[in-house]
Amino acid sequence: MDLHGDFHVYDTTLRDGAQQEGLNLSVADKLTIARHLDGLGVGYIEGGWPGANPKDTEFFRRAREELDLGHAKLAAFGATRRAGVAAADDPLVAALRDSGASVVTLVAKSHDRHVELALRTTLEENLAMVRDTVTHLREEGQQVFLDAEHFFDGYRANRDYALEVLRTAYDAGASVVALCDTNGGMLPGWVADVVHDVVSTTGVRVGIHCHNDTGCAVANTLAAVDAGASHVQGTINGYGERTGNADLVSVVANLELKLGREVLPQGLLADATRVAHAVADVTNFPPASRQPYVGTSAFTHKAGLHASAIKVDPDLYQHMDPTGVGNDMRLLVSDMAGRASIELKGRELGFDLSGDRDLVTRITDRVKTLEQRGYTFEAADASFELLLVEEVEGRRPSYFDVESWRVITETRPGDEALSEATVKLRADDVRYVVTGEGNGPVNALDQALRDAIGQAYPEVAKFELIDYKVRILDQGHGTDAVTRVLIETTDGQSSWVTVGVGANVIEASWGALVDGVTFGLRRHHQD
Amino acid sequence: MDLHGDFHVYDTTLRDGAQQEGLNLSVADKLTIARHLDGLGVGYIEGGWPGANPKDTEFFRRAREELDLGHAKLAAFGATRRAGVAAADDPLVAALRDSGASVVTLVAKSHDRHVELALRTTLEENLAMVRDTVTHLREEGQQVFLDAEHFFDGYRANRDYALEVLRTAYDAGASVVALCDTNGGMLPGWVADVVHDVVSTTGVRVGIHCHNDTGCAVANTLAAVDAGASHVQGTINGYGERTGNADLVSVVANLELKLGREVLPQGLLADATRVAHAVADVTNFPPASRQPYVGTSAFTHKAGLHASAIKVDPDLYQHMDPTGVGNDMRLLVSDMAGRASIELKGRELGFDLSGDRDLVTRITDRVKTLEQRGYTFEAADASFELLLVEEVEGRRPSYFDVESWRVITETRPGDEALSEATVKLRADDVRYVVTGEGNGPVNALDQALRDAIGQAYPEVAKFELIDYKVRILDQGHGTDAVTRVLIETTDGQSSWVTVGVGANVIEASWGALVDGVTFGLRRHHQD
Repeated sequence: MDLHGDFHVYDTTLRDGAQQEGLNLSVADKLTIARHLDGLGVGYIEGGWPGANPKDTEFFRRAREELDLGHAKLAAFGATRRAGVAAADDPLVAALRDSGASVVTLVAKSHDRHVELALRTTLEENLAMVRDTVTHLREEGQQVFLDAEHFFDGYRANRDYALEVLRTAYDAGASVVALCDTNGGMLPGWVADVVHDVVSTTGVRVGIHCHNDTGCAVANTLAAVDAGASHVQGTINGYGERTGNADLVSVVANLELKLGREVLPQGLLADATRVAHAVADVTNFPPASRQPYVGTSAFTHKAGLHASAIKVDPDLYQHMDPTGVGNDMRLLVSDMAGRASIELKGRELGFDLSGDRDLVTRITDRVKTLEQRGYTFEAADASFELLLVEEVEGRRPSYFDVESWRVITETRPGDEALSEATVKLRADDVRYVVTGEGNGPVNALDQALRDAIGQAYPEVAKFELIDYKVRILDQGHGTDAVTRVLIETTDGQSSWVTVGVGANVIEASWGALVDGVTFGLRRHHQD
Repeated sequence: MDLHGDFHVYDTTLRDGAQQEGLNLSVADKLTIARHLDGLGVGYIEGGWPGANPKDTEFFRRAREELDLGHAKLAAFGATRRAGVAAADDPLVAALRDSGASVVTLVAKSHDRHVELALRTTLEENLAMVRDTVTHLREEGQQVFLDAEHFFDGYRANRDYALEVLRTAYDAGASVVALCDTNGGMLPGWVADVVHDVVSTTGVRVGIHCHNDTGCAVANTLAAVDAGASHVQGTINGYGERTGNADLVSVVANLELKLGREVLPQGLLADATRVAHAVADVTNFPPASRQPYVGTSAFTHKAGLHASAIKVDPDLYQHMDPTGVGNDMRLLVSDMAGRASIELKGRELGFDLSGDRDLVTRITDRVKTLEQRGYTFEAADASFELLLVEEVEGRRPSYFDVESWRVITETRPGDEALSEATVKLRADDVRYVVTGEGNGPVNALDQALRDAIGQAYPEVAKFELIDYKVRILDQGHGTDAVTRVLIETTDGQSSWVTVGVGANVIEASWGALVDGVTFGLRRHHQD
């Protein structure tokens, strides 16, 4: 079955999601997220607006070289040609053409007042802009989708014109016209009526793009599908401007698990929780615990009242089996990680734990305890592997013993701040006292640590800290907060992520640094 | 018009909302929240389960003495009598009777399997429990609502029995039977069908109680109202077990502003944003910025592209007038920002820049330059205001001159890390050299800075750092990375966000700290 032809799951996290207040994605972030989306099996990934935004141009350039997508096609987003210019001569249209994306999603005005006030052109010229741009890109071999901006408001203001825009795009060769509730004010009944009218009047293939301003983005999307739409747009974790876009995972989970429609490749929805949290790690927005399907609280039960009945028949107390989206039922005592996912994770890392119930219990308990203290192992595979090895082999891999460390950061007027770290440790029975400098405290500590053990383990010279993320966990008062640090280290060939937690951000960083170096040394000594 | 008779807005924040993971309310908290709810004009406030929970018993006791409600009636929540006991003899029923609440909301099983597995009684006895308890409480002069637990699942399993429970309660004198989607798995179309069947088959007055497990709690509630329900239950900020309950403000705002139904006393919906945030202050859960209607981002616009059109007609870009729910339109200053959005932002902060083209150009250019260096102003309104003031008044607001600073973080085996900062600066022509300690370097610097200027500006003692976010921007090689720090500071009344950027995370933090204190001092000196 050709899923792409049948029904489109179209993700716009990297474009519309990135409009969210406070969200800033680097090109590397976008590539990482694209890989996660592909792993979830979405059909289309809208990567950004090449030409309008240099970062997005760069994304499409690097995507051509670095992204190897198994399921998804990349879509480039952009506007129809400017008024009074040939599509072929418009540099922004050229950027779409040259992006290397096999799909272009063109945003077009379908609301008459927006044509006049925002585009400052005539209704006729707007139709010509749609027609010419779609025709040009189709001739250049790209598939074209149309995003009809402000469609629902435009339909109310001038139904005939709004429909004319859709027909024009479709006749010129667009394969889908997505109706956008750009201002987000719709309710499900209204969406159903309009989609029904569009489908029956024009015969175009309809997509739907909703925002959550009335709290109904997911329901509006489902209402559109029920009325005949066969292309849904949304974002991971519902990221987006204002109240956000439709949460794509909720939409897809409802379609698959509630309405029995297969819209993702089989089995991939079970990765939804992992993907949603991994993307949250990249955006550095804490995941919403109450998020439908994938939230850490989504299948958590507080009422002790029902505990015995839950044991008899859990389905009496949950609306679906949480494993369907890779989540877990929790009876509010502990945090995440059930035994099954520990076993699964172990297998992923090359440890078969299935034969040893006690071992799995011990690891699960430690993970729970550490997660209660603020650790996360979802993103920090390397720290999890060290913990696993410690439990399997009875001792934590260790290549040096730290005695103490200190780091000083100082500045003087007009000068850049400088950091200097001193680390005291023993490696291979020799005591080292080494000072390192850096442009930041963690950088200086990293330098000093690797210098100190460099004589015993020359391979650490190749290690490099390539990413560093900080999150404050207890958002109470600054001084009580727990800080979590994620560090990514590379040896030039591959990279791994470790986690540290502490009241002091430097201490948390140190924990993650030591794990990072230890993991790298262990891998080196295994090879 | 008797709003209570006409349509019920029924809040269950204090009972079902309090089931949310991590939420703990004292009796004083509950009284405070009840006052806020009454200020919003809800018809009913469900206060808790007296008898089952000592805190809730205490709440109803104190409510009788301390609460002076203008709009709302208090409802006590509790279960039908136990099996095999007379209602009058059941101590839990007595606690409801003696609570002083004029309304009792009785939860009853309506799903046959739940009767058998959780109540461990017969279907007939369950009906008798409903009948007896309702009759007894009515005879004692209380109004009775019935919460039909697991109703939608029960209706699927055994429609006749589920309807029989409703009829039994209604015939015994319950004024409303609320259909509860306890497991939260419903979708709007399903809810509409069931409510329609219940209303037309039984003729009872129907209420609706939804959870957000499919992301459709608000839409499900609206679907029920459309199908004939005239009583809606929900919680402030959508608090509740798992994914939470229907967000009552979204439900009410949709009913009033979208569907033209007056369900609150006139004018009170305009308090919704204030109330939602005030309740969040009590629960100590940070408000969700993306929350429909009341979120700080709910009417925030990023795209500079549209700023010129927004100036002409804001209604083209918002689904409603934000003042209707007491919220505000905000424009983000981002790297897409054009001149128009700078002007609008200035107006929002009280600066009329429209007459001075050069000034706007200068500010726009500086914003762009700084954003290229890694600053962001969309999240950091306070830093943007300082920049604006600097350009408008010709000099940056400044209350002290920093000479130098230094911070040391160190640890010893088995000891927690400790940070110590020394700041040298001049304030009011006096030179201060002050050392501060903290559980992290930024905390220590903050302490030292506020101590150093505290003699000249005693008001800084009230300032407190409440949030701290770090982001590495150039994800290239660790050492070239630019670090961006966002700091939120409060003076106990309001809070503001500032930004700092630097190769050194401590230097970036210092920049944000100095901006934070400067902004607070400027505001203080203006008042």
